[in-house]
Amino acid sequence: MEQKNSKSISGFSKLSKDEKIQWIAQHFYENTDEVTKDLKRFWQADEDLQKTIDGFSENTISNFIFPFGVAPNFVINGETYCVPMVIEESSVVAAASSAAKFWFNRGGFKAEIIDTVKIGQVHFTWKGDFEQLQSHFPAIQQQLLDDTSHITANMRKRGGGVLKIELLNMTDSEPDYYQLRVSFETCDSMGANFINSVLEEFGRSLKHFIANCNGIEEKDCTIIMAILSNYTPDCLVRVSVESKIEDLGQFPGMDAVTFAQKFHKAIRIATIDPYRATTHNKGIFNGIDAVVLATANDFRAIEANGHTYAARDGQYRSLSSCSIEDGTFRFWMDIPLTVGTVGGLTKLHPLAKRSLEMLGHPSARELMGIIAAVGLAQNFAAVRSLVTTGIQKGHMKMHLMNVLNHLSANEEEIEAATIHFECHHISFSSVRDFLDAKRKEKVLHS
Amino acid sequence: MEQKNSKSISGFSKLSKDEKIQWIAQHFYENTDEVTKDLKRFWQADEDLQKTIDGFSENTISNFIFPFGVAPNFVINGETYCVPMVIEESSVVAAASSAAKFWFNRGGFKAEIIDTVKIGQVHFTWKGDFEQLQSHFPAIQQQLLDDTSHITANMRKRGGGVLKIELLNMTDSEPDYYQLRVSFETCDSMGANFINSVLEEFGRSLKHFIANCNGIEEKDCTIIMAILSNYTPDCLVRVSVESKIEDLGQFPGMDAVTFAQKFHKAIRIATIDPYRATTHNKGIFNGIDAVVLATANDFRAIEANGHTYAARDGQYRSLSSCSIEDGTFRFWMDIPLTVGTVGGLTKLHPLAKRSLEMLGHPSARELMGIIAAVGLAQNFAAVRSLVTTGIQKGHMKMHLMNVLNHLSANEEEIEAATIHFECHHISFSSVRDFLDAKRKEKVLHS
Repeated sequence: MEQKNSKSISGFSKLSKDEKIQWIAQHFYENTDEVTKDLKRFWQADEDLQKTIDGFSENTISNFIFPFGVAPNFVINGETYCVPMVIEESSVVAAASSAAKFWFNRGGFKAEIIDTVKIGQVHFTWKGDFEQLQSHFPAIQQQLLDDTSHITANMRKRGGGVLKIELLNMTDSEPDYYQLRVSFETCDSMGANFINSVLEEFGRSLKHFIANCNGIEEKDCTIIMAILSNYTPDCLVRVSVESKIEDLGQFPGMDAVTFAQKFHKAIRIATIDPYRATTHNKGIFNGIDAVVLATANDFRAIEANGHTYAARDGQYRSLSSCSIEDGTFRFWMDIPLTVGTVGGLTKLHPLAKRSLEMLGHPSARELMGIIAAVGLAQNFAAVRSLVTTGIQKGHMKMHLMNVLNHLSANEEEIEAATIHFECHHISFSSVRDFLDAKRKEKVLHS
Repeated sequence: MEQKNSKSISGFSKLSKDEKIQWIAQHFYENTDEVTKDLKRFWQADEDLQKTIDGFSENTISNFIFPFGVAPNFVINGETYCVPMVIEESSVVAAASSAAKFWFNRGGFKAEIIDTVKIGQVHFTWKGDFEQLQSHFPAIQQQLLDDTSHITANMRKRGGGVLKIELLNMTDSEPDYYQLRVSFETCDSMGANFINSVLEEFGRSLKHFIANCNGIEEKDCTIIMAILSNYTPDCLVRVSVESKIEDLGQFPGMDAVTFAQKFHKAIRIATIDPYRATTHNKGIFNGIDAVVLATANDFRAIEANGHTYAARDGQYRSLSSCSIEDGTFRFWMDIPLTVGTVGGLTKLHPLAKRSLEMLGHPSARELMGIIAAVGLAQNFAAVRSLVTTGIQKGHMKMHLMNVLNHLSANEEEIEAATIHFECHHISFSSVRDFLDAKRKEKVLHS
């Protein structure tokens, strides 16, 4: 291996896993042996399994672990689910579970699939007469569908495929720029590979058609790129809860009416103020992403989709809405979600497979409803905390336990710390100092 | 434990980990024993370590593993880094590594911190005369700062704290609604707990001030909520690369000038079309989130922040920009990033700690630059693929290997499949069918 400086390397990807670790441990750490051991302790004993995990990505040297938890008692469209969640942030699973239970006795969540249309685009530049292109568009469409029939055959058998091909003239925004916007149905798969394969073939096919069509004078068309869009406003699920206000019960420091009004106000604020909307929606994605991760779906796709949707009217706003009418509290959200329950890593990741089993082998449509319900539950729990006790009480208690665990506090110390930090500020250093003092005291007295 | 129906439960969180698994395995799976074994095989042998991981979240029953990889050869501001990345999507680490190497020989990435201001808000309703509130605002500010001095003491020692408190009259958008918008500097910590603790105290303090101030007639103010904002347009990093076009080299099927022009066009398209912008930015976050995960920062916060920023002018647009001037190709991005290198899970997660060590114990500012550079690298690699070969060739090759691994293909079978699928469509079923045929053939001939 050639080295350009002590910290750079050529041919790294071709090294074995052991060699990779060795090079990293030698060049980026002082305690080479300890680091090597530490990176290897997370390897799976089962070599086949480890090979599968390594194959998901590249240059892999270890496994990064996240807690895999569950939120039971989720009632969605009358079915009861125990929902798998993968997340590193404390309070998220507890909040989802708590909201699930709250709504368990109030009819649960309703989820309704509005539509499941996925989107892809072929972007191209061309200097010809648009009317010529437009007049041949029916023939072009037929050609594109014919040329991709071998790719779409299986998907068509499952009830999916290409739904619509639109030709968009974008030259008002950018010279010579046109677009094919293509709608797809991909059934239970997320469909990224399917859509991209079709679109790339569409690109080649379109270029060929234009070059060989007698009625189109300008023969030279440049395909800039062909790829799915992660923005799918028509792959949308609506999820909602509702209750008579009097059935909402009591809340810390306030009755149901006051709670409903404060909650309603909080949603209004997240609708009008982008600074609040960002955090509000972030909370929704705390719930959503935890299920997306647990089912090995793609959280970057889900995030980009949802946030673009939140900005669709020209201002970034809350994804969830609330109404109080005739004594009924209603809380709901429309959110675009593109997920798969077959294909991708869903079968390949051993725990993602278990997650889907835990959910009863849902269809993609059913999973959309489950994920949206967890997002709405998370949002309900977060806003409920915010407008009643505030979130810090719960958060800091969690943080205290994390730090105490990390500092290997024993039961006696945990008890003392819990009492002490009821009325003292919690930080890593304040907890460490408290424990140090306790331990010194104990040594002195022993 | 009381059971409302066979799939619901009370007191679940109080069960032991073994009891939790038992209940889930019995109620949501047919193969109870196998599932129990499978969930436990991901537990860490080191009990203290497992306890730490369990403590991050709630209702934990297992660990979810992601491949932990690295992208070497990242030159940022003259320093060479090997960047840890955690991601389940194939090609992301390979793309980042490839882009890092491409720019390694062309001066690397430049990262510049524009500012590091974090934001928090106290939202309240009040029915009084705004001028009275405004005229007392200097005194209110002093009171808020005094009342939180015990919380801010440590942060102030480190050079951070409360920078600014603004009183915003939001009654034009919503009746009786006002806001304190507070700016913070949180140094090397992400600062969520710090900011939230200060804001909740601000809320109590404000309510108390209004209730007891002689010059303010309306005594009753309702604190709706007090919490940080994840939208921080002034916690911003700019990252860039540049090269003379002639130094860009050759690309598959095109020279450097054609490449630069197509690349530039692709960025323009992502700037004007939200459908493309969503996917374009999703690619940026593929890189960003992988480092955010590896350093145990909060990717939901990072995503919400960046996407809101992408929509700041009223249309959702590309985060990255490109220019070609005087023969120079320049590619850059401004992106808000709130990350910590102390506090939170950064010390508590054993591999996050190793990630930060691998990066040379960066400050939060340095980590902002590293993360932004990986995002830009990812974007460069993705767009480079899109405008040259298309992305499917690489993706499908990866997918083929994943499926072959999953189906335990041997070396001979892998070789045969690689040749066969050069010119056949790759899907899980087509690969399985190919292998089945090969294996039957072999049995027949043996």
